[in-house]
Amino acid sequence: MANSGSVADMAAVLQALKSIQESQIQLQEGFVSLSQRMDQVAPPVSSTDDDMAEKGSQVTKTAVASTATVESTTTPTASTETAIQAQKSGFTSRIILTTYPKQIGIVPLPFKWGAPEPAERGPVVVSRSSSTIGRRNAHGGSYSIYFALALASKQLDINHKPDFTNTEPAANIGPFPQWGDPKKIVAMDPWGHLAPWLFADTIKNENVDIRPTIAITKAHMKLPELEESVRAGRLVPDGKICLNSAGELAVTKFAVEPVWYLPGVAERFGIDEGVLRRSLFEHTGGSYPELITRGDIKVFLPPIGGLTVYCFGDPAKMSDEKVRLALRIHDECNGSDVFGSDICTCRPYLIYGIEEAVKEAQNGGSGVVIYFRKEGRALGEVTKYLVYNARKRGEDRASDYFKRTENIAGVKDMRFQALMPDILHWLGIKKIDRMLSMSNMKHDAIVGQGIPIHERVELPEEWIPQDSRVEIDAKITAGYFTTGHRMTEDELKAVKGRMWEDIDH
Amino acid sequence: MANSGSVADMAAVLQALKSIQESQIQLQEGFVSLSQRMDQVAPPVSSTDDDMAEKGSQVTKTAVASTATVESTTTPTASTETAIQAQKSGFTSRIILTTYPKQIGIVPLPFKWGAPEPAERGPVVVSRSSSTIGRRNAHGGSYSIYFALALASKQLDINHKPDFTNTEPAANIGPFPQWGDPKKIVAMDPWGHLAPWLFADTIKNENVDIRPTIAITKAHMKLPELEESVRAGRLVPDGKICLNSAGELAVTKFAVEPVWYLPGVAERFGIDEGVLRRSLFEHTGGSYPELITRGDIKVFLPPIGGLTVYCFGDPAKMSDEKVRLALRIHDECNGSDVFGSDICTCRPYLIYGIEEAVKEAQNGGSGVVIYFRKEGRALGEVTKYLVYNARKRGEDRASDYFKRTENIAGVKDMRFQALMPDILHWLGIKKIDRMLSMSNMKHDAIVGQGIPIHERVELPEEWIPQDSRVEIDAKITAGYFTTGHRMTEDELKAVKGRMWEDIDH
Repeated sequence: MANSGSVADMAAVLQALKSIQESQIQLQEGFVSLSQRMDQVAPPVSSTDDDMAEKGSQVTKTAVASTATVESTTTPTASTETAIQAQKSGFTSRIILTTYPKQIGIVPLPFKWGAPEPAERGPVVVSRSSSTIGRRNAHGGSYSIYFALALASKQLDINHKPDFTNTEPAANIGPFPQWGDPKKIVAMDPWGHLAPWLFADTIKNENVDIRPTIAITKAHMKLPELEESVRAGRLVPDGKICLNSAGELAVTKFAVEPVWYLPGVAERFGIDEGVLRRSLFEHTGGSYPELITRGDIKVFLPPIGGLTVYCFGDPAKMSDEKVRLALRIHDECNGSDVFGSDICTCRPYLIYGIEEAVKEAQNGGSGVVIYFRKEGRALGEVTKYLVYNARKRGEDRASDYFKRTENIAGVKDMRFQALMPDILHWLGIKKIDRMLSMSNMKHDAIVGQGIPIHERVELPEEWIPQDSRVEIDAKITAGYFTTGHRMTEDELKAVKGRMWEDIDH
Repeated sequence: MANSGSVADMAAVLQALKSIQESQIQLQEGFVSLSQRMDQVAPPVSSTDDDMAEKGSQVTKTAVASTATVESTTTPTASTETAIQAQKSGFTSRIILTTYPKQIGIVPLPFKWGAPEPAERGPVVVSRSSSTIGRRNAHGGSYSIYFALALASKQLDINHKPDFTNTEPAANIGPFPQWGDPKKIVAMDPWGHLAPWLFADTIKNENVDIRPTIAITKAHMKLPELEESVRAGRLVPDGKICLNSAGELAVTKFAVEPVWYLPGVAERFGIDEGVLRRSLFEHTGGSYPELITRGDIKVFLPPIGGLTVYCFGDPAKMSDEKVRLALRIHDECNGSDVFGSDICTCRPYLIYGIEEAVKEAQNGGSGVVIYFRKEGRALGEVTKYLVYNARKRGEDRASDYFKRTENIAGVKDMRFQALMPDILHWLGIKKIDRMLSMSNMKHDAIVGQGIPIHERVELPEEWIPQDSRVEIDAKITAGYFTTGHRMTEDELKAVKGRMWEDIDH
């Protein structure tokens, strides 16, 4: 370099240096700030820095060092220093907001939905306890809000290990070929009743929390309507199923919590899995971001109610194709099922279904009633009451029946019977002789799943409460099964419910 | 600078420059990579870059520019260029995994829990529809899984605006001073029944989705047990409340969904709000990260069942301190309430409660029954059946009653009555003359909230099913109210349930 140019060169060099330093400081600040934001959102899982954090701190250290090496014209800004401090101390509580497939320590237990053998299928592991969180292979969980409250208020010890001694199913069921068909069962875990025993080794050796999502027990039940049926001679005690003149019944009960195989559920609805995941995440108010970030986790336990199977007669008969089966599928309606509201046919149809199921079992067949927790067509009671108010303030005509719900909720019905037949597949049911339901949606879902229905049985007229005609006539016109008259829209207009003027407190 | 040193100096300077440039490029690459990851996890809400991204791209541009200004010994690496490209194109689907208080576009509608006037209190806004998400002031939502499914499968239009015409409450309630006390009501929205009307202007002008969380309607109900009561002369029709010889009742019903004020709920449980938020987030399987990232949002709508109030007689009487009030608080038990299982006293106590409430109303007082959806002590039916199995395979002694549940679930009971009295405050109830419940937990929660209970009424012996003695005797020994004998632990051992040997299918 020429002497004469050296002053100019030096000036240029110094200028370049200064410019470089300035960019570097900006970069440092931007970087640290971004790291902070990242820490807030997804800090490293393990307590040792993972690749990213290590790289980050290495870069920061290098940047600081090199700034110091050259006689810098600026000192590290105060904000940079604070930022570096903050990054080093990090956040004291490592809250894992969401996980990623490749994070250190994230090694989901192997799981293959629909594999015929449980060992190949693997356990559903959903707990987020510290020993289990890295091994989870399912989102969500029935580990619910109450569970979280119990832990927060220290009424439950996070390290409590459930003792499942003597809790095994009270009756055998399956396994059936349907359990090994990933398309037939997508909304429950076919091995859910045996999880703690099938995977006892996994629980012990991997120190993970695995719990049943199905439980099977036996019971006696007594319904006042059936006591009346016995009195009236419609139901005859046999000492085994209908036990005595009080109409007491012996029953096997299966409680089932939902376990969704997301690809299978998406397919059942004819939509893309990504669309399903995104909608589940966004429209539940932003819950379970792992639905988005963990595409490798295919199973979701949604925070909704499950179902209960009431089986009269030997449970083994349900899957026996040579034995007649009577079945009622019932969706919850608390106001009627428990409290006997007269505005709908719900409890009457449930009782009728139980009675017919019991009779089928008494005749050597199988009688099954399945209760789904889909209150108010899965719209809930608040929406239900809003609809009632609009009906009763209007003219409560059967012709407007569905419109009321649509105006408020945007749909007539949110029950989506598409997932309903899975329980039938799980019980080994291959055909239904008597379907104790008029619903075309339930019928189509079952038949669409390859389970034929031989006879459909409508609710006898005398069981229909007076103020329920609006409901039942509207449903028949909309497509519900009947052997009787299906009203036209005009005829429906003449079917009116009781007006509120007659209620005087 | 001496000539002789200048060559060496220059060499040193150039060396330092090179070193700085190399670190800078490293830093750039690391920064862009991190920004990419951040965009994946929590991109800026608005479509224009927020501060962070702008700063980021500014830094990147400057760094690139300064590297280019000095006659660089390295050209920007291929990876840097790719990184910059990727950052610019971003991700096409802007899934908002979680929001932050200071993000552009995040402007929660003003909200002040417990303010006496609704205009000052503000609406609860929980929807994540695109027009509303920036204005939300509450987490979660009853906008549930089914809602999300309906949207995903295109059976519901995301832009559907509910039409609340004629859905207004069928009876007036309040307002009461309790509604303006932020400590008295923390688990529901006291204005929830009027939301669409109180905040109609907000809905229109701000284009946000606001829905009721409470609905009030009127109904007729008919219970077979009460028909029998009329027959037996225990209940006498009056034509207004008990309408006829079929035992039909006229009732006002309130459906209420939970709306939690997190600081208030934490205080009610005696725990730190941060601990509560963290537990809710983590132990529900990682749902609602905004519980962590949005400390400014104080309200949470948990995905659990709500409650229904059945009020016999004029609802205005509930808050009249000169009028007698009979009250039953009932926690759901589907197996008994709907299906009449004989292993517990649930439906019997519910019916007894309804009958006593009706009689109180017939006598000019107020009769209230409140049904909480806390199935199986909030443990759910699967756990309940596991407990039954363990009991029946053991000796089903009353002395072991609670231990069975504790072994499996880790707690005796997860119902947490601490939040239960809020509905009483909302109804304006100031005292209870006859409490139709034996539960010490319910009693203590109510009295602890400043509502005195004058008389406690236990379930009469003749209402107790035979196989329910284990349940009721165990509860009495554990502290439930009785005027009768409270058994010792030894005496409890002799109380045994029916064994399964007698059930033969």
